[in-house]
Amino acid sequence: MSIDLEGRLSALSPALKGLDAMLISGLPNIRYLSGFTGSNALLLVAGGSATLLTDPRYTLQAARQTPFAVRIGKGPLGALAVDMAKRRRWKHLGVERNRISFETWEALKNALPTTCELVPVTNAVENLRMVKSAGEIALIHDSVETNSRAFRRALKSFRSGMRESELAAEIDYQARRAGAEAPAFETIVASGEHSALPHARPTDDRIAPKSVLLIDMGCFQAGYASDMTRTLFVGKAPKRFKKIYHDVLDAQLAAIDAVRPGVTAATVDSAARKWLTKAGHGPAFVHSTGHGLGLEIHEPPRIGDKGDVVLEQGFVITIEPGVYIEGWGGVRIEDTVVVTESGCEVLTPTTKELMEL
Amino acid sequence: MSIDLEGRLSALSPALKGLDAMLISGLPNIRYLSGFTGSNALLLVAGGSATLLTDPRYTLQAARQTPFAVRIGKGPLGALAVDMAKRRRWKHLGVERNRISFETWEALKNALPTTCELVPVTNAVENLRMVKSAGEIALIHDSVETNSRAFRRALKSFRSGMRESELAAEIDYQARRAGAEAPAFETIVASGEHSALPHARPTDDRIAPKSVLLIDMGCFQAGYASDMTRTLFVGKAPKRFKKIYHDVLDAQLAAIDAVRPGVTAATVDSAARKWLTKAGHGPAFVHSTGHGLGLEIHEPPRIGDKGDVVLEQGFVITIEPGVYIEGWGGVRIEDTVVVTESGCEVLTPTTKELMEL
Repeated sequence: MSIDLEGRLSALSPALKGLDAMLISGLPNIRYLSGFTGSNALLLVAGGSATLLTDPRYTLQAARQTPFAVRIGKGPLGALAVDMAKRRRWKHLGVERNRISFETWEALKNALPTTCELVPVTNAVENLRMVKSAGEIALIHDSVETNSRAFRRALKSFRSGMRESELAAEIDYQARRAGAEAPAFETIVASGEHSALPHARPTDDRIAPKSVLLIDMGCFQAGYASDMTRTLFVGKAPKRFKKIYHDVLDAQLAAIDAVRPGVTAATVDSAARKWLTKAGHGPAFVHSTGHGLGLEIHEPPRIGDKGDVVLEQGFVITIEPGVYIEGWGGVRIEDTVVVTESGCEVLTPTTKELMEL
Repeated sequence: MSIDLEGRLSALSPALKGLDAMLISGLPNIRYLSGFTGSNALLLVAGGSATLLTDPRYTLQAARQTPFAVRIGKGPLGALAVDMAKRRRWKHLGVERNRISFETWEALKNALPTTCELVPVTNAVENLRMVKSAGEIALIHDSVETNSRAFRRALKSFRSGMRESELAAEIDYQARRAGAEAPAFETIVASGEHSALPHARPTDDRIAPKSVLLIDMGCFQAGYASDMTRTLFVGKAPKRFKKIYHDVLDAQLAAIDAVRPGVTAATVDSAARKWLTKAGHGPAFVHSTGHGLGLEIHEPPRIGDKGDVVLEQGFVITIEPGVYIEGWGGVRIEDTVVVTESGCEVLTPTTKELMEL
């Protein structure tokens, strides 16, 4: 995919109004705007172009990855930015409010001439990134497909008495073999009562017969994330599991139904929350309904009860309601969906029929 | 291992002199002080005790993991901290300068009463964490052993024509099977000219005969990191590779020889750098000699030419000089070592004899 970096810079310019330049410090934002994937960089955007600042480890890589000018510095990269601000006599330099540490803010403030004001800016690049291009959607789709393939293949190797950690390792391995670069987060394999922890880490406990098995997994492929949760039952599912499973599934489908351009994130959250509340699970749904994903596994918008972001075509979000009961277990069902012209498309191909292992 | 959390809090108290309380926002620091491993938390340390702030997803987990009081909040956790500051009428609240975003700093500033001053503090917990306890060293040792075992097992599956990404996947899988939770960073498998990029990502290129093969890998096990690099040759190593390999190895051994309590990080860096400069590789050694590791893969001290930190018994650091030549390739050799009473112990058991595959 050839990325339209110039188009992205142009799209950013309204957010930079009144600024001479903007210092981008969030690595995913730097990747989005410049193509550079290294672990240490700053990007200065000014006058419709950009300059990448990085260290000598990345001299070759930077030259290959970005069409923009590259400056290599030893020591803190902020010093290079201050140099440029002085030479070009910038008066207003934007910084990413939520991507810059207080320490870096202080250091810039102290090093810049008093004639140059630091201006904190909120989510300038993140707001652009919410709307995915066709190319980005294709990459996320690939990542989602890889993730589901890994789920299917890993489940084939499931055997009675397997440890949670072993199944998690198998999942990550299958994702890598299927084309992923890395897990998008620590894969969750939570069996029995462990599944009542929404963010359980896999333990060395064996997955027992007659227990809930919650799997939350995602991967990065070509830089883009995927995210899926399925909750299975080991053995024949008892009534209570079936009831809760279908309550969560109904809530998930209701939320998916609510996704379309023009509605707020809170509307989508409320569709799932109302359903679970009606089914008596209100207090057991302890998190928000979903989140955006792309170059990061969690990006705006958050699909929660305070979400005032209005969905637009090209947003990619997760829909993942869940119910958690201490001493019993939890059920969560999660898909990745893309907002289309009139509704949404579920990218995740994995079945949501109740699976018994 | 039972962790002496009370001891850690006491050890922190000199750094909090003059403060009514300190707000810890770095997750590894929160884990170090409280035992909590979740992804969203703040820790307020005051009067020799602590209060963990987290969200409802972690209610059960927090209660299990930390002996300290837990407060659950929806929305930004900073609001809970402000509440406590108001109720207890704190006048001086410390924050972690390099772990708090400018956005959070601003939000706290705006919400706190004017009678409460925010005081930025540098590396209070990181400085404690540099000295590892015997229990921590044992955990790092386990992680290092797992990492080396995974290296050995993955190499057994090496075959001619294997892709870099396949070998990287095999390495990560073997580490998981051997007990690791996760890779400590994206495993580097860089063959041929790719190895000239110090932070290369594995590509889908096949590992060719008669090429350099650089592998940099690490894992987390029980929360603690390991880190190792070995550079091999696929086929019979030519003279130039052998020469550079031994130059790097000599530099690495010289740096290891320099490690002991009482010397600065810069002294260790300079031991490697002098050697490589004498061998004519000065400009090709484009990074620092190493870094601390523990709950994070990179922690203080940095072992670089400006490193003024004085090494102490219990520090765990990497020693990893390298030489990178565009169009040819690179050689890096890295071990994890622990500073002992009179020198250091190399934890990494993998041979540094030149390996031909």
